[in-house]
Amino acid sequence: MSDFESLREECHAANVALPATGLVDLTFGNVSVCDRELGVFAIKPSGVAYDRLVPADMVIVDFDGRVVDGSLRPSSDTPTHRRLFLGFPGIRSVVHTHSRHAVAFAQAAAEIPVFGTTHADYFRGSVPVTRALTAGEVEADYEWETGNVIVERFSDMDPLDSPAVLVRNHGPFAWGPSGEKAVETALALEIVANMALKTLAINPAAHRLGRHLVEKHFLRKHGDAAYYGQSSPG
Amino acid sequence: MSDFESLREECHAANVALPATGLVDLTFGNVSVCDRELGVFAIKPSGVAYDRLVPADMVIVDFDGRVVDGSLRPSSDTPTHRRLFLGFPGIRSVVHTHSRHAVAFAQAAAEIPVFGTTHADYFRGSVPVTRALTAGEVEADYEWETGNVIVERFSDMDPLDSPAVLVRNHGPFAWGPSGEKAVETALALEIVANMALKTLAINPAAHRLGRHLVEKHFLRKHGDAAYYGQSSPG
Amino acid sequence: MSDFESLREECHAANVALPATGLVDLTFGNVSVCDRELGVFAIKPSGVAYDRLVPADMVIVDFDGRVVDGSLRPSSDTPTHRRLFLGFPGIRSVVHTHSRHAVAFAQAAAEIPVFGTTHADYFRGSVPVTRALTAGEVEADYEWETGNVIVERFSDMDPLDSPAVLVRNHGPFAWGPSGEKAVETALALEIVANMALKTLAINPAAHRLGRHLVEKHFLRKHGDAAYYGQSSPG
Amino acid sequence: MSDFESLREECHAANVALPATGLVDLTFGNVSVCDRELGVFAIKPSGVAYDRLVPADMVIVDFDGRVVDGSLRPSSDTPTHRRLFLGFPGIRSVVHTHSRHAVAFAQAAAEIPVFGTTHADYFRGSVPVTRALTAGEVEADYEWETGNVIVERFSDMDPLDSPAVLVRNHGPFAWGPSGEKAVETALALEIVANMALKTLAINPAAHRLGRHLVEKHFLRKHGDAAYYGQSSPG
Repeated sequence: MSDFESLREECHAANVALPATGLVDLTFGNVSVCDRELGVFAIKPSGVAYDRLVPADMVIVDFDGRVVDGSLRPSSDTPTHRRLFLGFPGIRSVVHTHSRHAVAFAQAAAEIPVFGTTHADYFRGSVPVTRALTAGEVEADYEWETGNVIVERFSDMDPLDSPAVLVRNHGPFAWGPSGEKAVETALALEIVANMALKTLAINPAAHRLGRHLVEKHFLRKHGDAAYYGQSSPG
Repeated sequence: MSDFESLREECHAANVALPATGLVDLTFGNVSVCDRELGVFAIKPSGVAYDRLVPADMVIVDFDGRVVDGSLRPSSDTPTHRRLFLGFPGIRSVVHTHSRHAVAFAQAAAEIPVFGTTHADYFRGSVPVTRALTAGEVEADYEWETGNVIVERFSDMDPLDSPAVLVRNHGPFAWGPSGEKAVETALALEIVANMALKTLAINPAAHRLGRHLVEKHFLRKHGDAAYYGQSSPG
Repeated sequence: MSDFESLREECHAANVALPATGLVDLTFGNVSVCDRELGVFAIKPSGVAYDRLVPADMVIVDFDGRVVDGSLRPSSDTPTHRRLFLGFPGIRSVVHTHSRHAVAFAQAAAEIPVFGTTHADYFRGSVPVTRALTAGEVEADYEWETGNVIVERFSDMDPLDSPAVLVRNHGPFAWGPSGEKAVETALALEIVANMALKTLAINPAAHRLGRHLVEKHFLRKHGDAAYYGQSSPG
Repeated sequence: MSDFESLREECHAANVALPATGLVDLTFGNVSVCDRELGVFAIKPSGVAYDRLVPADMVIVDFDGRVVDGSLRPSSDTPTHRRLFLGFPGIRSVVHTHSRHAVAFAQAAAEIPVFGTTHADYFRGSVPVTRALTAGEVEADYEWETGNVIVERFSDMDPLDSPAVLVRNHGPFAWGPSGEKAVETALALEIVANMALKTLAINPAAHRLGRHLVEKHFLRKHGDAAYYGQSSPG
């Protein structure tokens, strides 16, 4: 049990941070954090209010989907998180919300166009949207297949270049190297969706940000040549 | 009087929860909770500020519309609540708000299309809108007839499949098995109305959610096969 | 001075209530309250932050526009308030804000259509917008002429039927029998402007509320036959 | 070091005021304040959360771009601030935010039209938008060139007449005689952008405010003949 303590704490801290960001209403949202050495991830229990969560409530699930520690039922979205941890080896945390502007793009079956530098600070291009699930996929293993269409969407993209996706008619999933960073990305996603919706309201034919500026801003914050913040990576 | 104490407390708790949800402005909103064995319901008094309400202020009204306990005048919407308790035997609580996005759909005389899974978690299809009241109905017994057009709208629908409705040019009514749950549904309604309005702004021709996904999400949370949350129903 | 104490207190209370309603930003807003027997009104001083206001700061101005008590300069909008007190004998308080949705309709030179019952609870029809001021009017006596075009707009309307107006390209003025009630009306105006904008976004051809329902709702709250709230008027 | 104490305090106060205005999310925003006699400006350090900032964290940079005091790395936008201090001799403080409505206009490559008096109280005409940077400018010295296109945009305008600009596909910069006043202008900019977006939603063909009213409102608050507030300038 003590093996999972720090994992539970990180996962708990990220989950309880969600309501303060304004990203979630009611119990619409969950965060998981994995430990690849232990081969498990911690995830929020299903349908529990954020203000009642304690670290011990986080459910520990292995990469085969078995609950290995914890007395509560894990989030019903657990198979989606598991599929992402298996499909994207470079990530440690997954966040799912129903934040309103990101959901609106997902419901409109529209990617979020890269209209400005706020967007490019986090995403190296437009934020993609998945294809619809087939009736068979919904029937068979819905939450797992939700993860599958996400991984499929990234077959020719690096999930670290766009650390978020819109599941069509559903909503956003974001990810990152830690619970805290994945929540920040989920918040940035909602902000850029908000700005993109307003941009389209002013000018439905607004131009995408030029490729050189996308690269400039994304690489100002990511990778070996980053020069934003107080520490130099690489 | 002590017969009504727990009813008043549940009704009071649900009414004072309204302002915290952001669903109501000024005194635009009220909740009732009924006890079918006693044949009465508790309802908010008319035009009293939420922060001054105490449980004893809740007015007890019987199913014939007579005030049977309480010193204040009941909400002017009382006949609408009464009509719903009579018409929908499966419900225990009714919530009326003027929440802004739901009102906008009501004023636009437009149902709220089922664009995504957030919606389908609460409503098994688009949220319907009533027909307009006739001048005669407005003249004769306005608030009762408002309940009548709601019940008429559900003549071929189960009110538990769509636990909310939009009264045309007026606003939403929601219901449920308890004051707390009915308020949650009123909040979910406002959220999905908000998301639907934004969805239409991005894509006026957005597709409805496929029937299989509507069923999947609604039944994930409702009925015998539900698997969301910590307890298994049925 | 003690003659003006209760007037100053009512005016102060209404002014400091403005920021809590979300109606004003920075110092964009002011309330006046008049005493017709004394022939004066109290008004907010110009450009003072709401959180620093004390009752003694309220400036007392007579109906000829002379400051009769107080050490600060009155709001630059004082002549507009004075014109309304002179033109509308039935009112005691005037509120001016730059609340965002009401300003948007004023800037669009569009009345706020009566789309629903929330609106009709406060206004007996669409909320009117004034004509533009001429360059000569702006030059000569700008703030007084602003009051003039408002009074002109009501030449064939009762200012108690629509206790608010939009000054074209400027913003809303509201009024009422007390500072508290005038602020409530200014808040209701912003809410119905918000709902109207959303209604038009969903359905640009939305129908106005039928005349019988406008009358029903307005008279449910106003006049001898009112039956909303805890006390019966008339 | 004590030479910079008051400069750091003014800069710190303005930076920590940003989150309370709602203008910034995460760490998207920074304020600088210059002392032209000392030939330096204080600026926020890069990527530090507002709630952890203390005055001593403010970095002191000279007009050649050298850090002359402070242990942290200055904001990555420092060269833009420096360019503005050099190009606009009449300003003392620069504020950069990613406030959502102003960003939306910047992303839409649209100026903010002067639709009403709220706007004209702060800006003597529409708020301009810069041209796009060339790929070469982005490559060579991105943040400095961002300042350059701003200065270029004002080649035939007085920066005190429009104390803010939109950098295309990026966001707003505002300025003023003090940190406090520049933040106020950044807030006013966001408010008028918000109102302008709503105005266009109601009436895409809305008229600009007449020149006489723009002049009236701008000069009511600025210049020798100002008569707003408690002190007479000039």
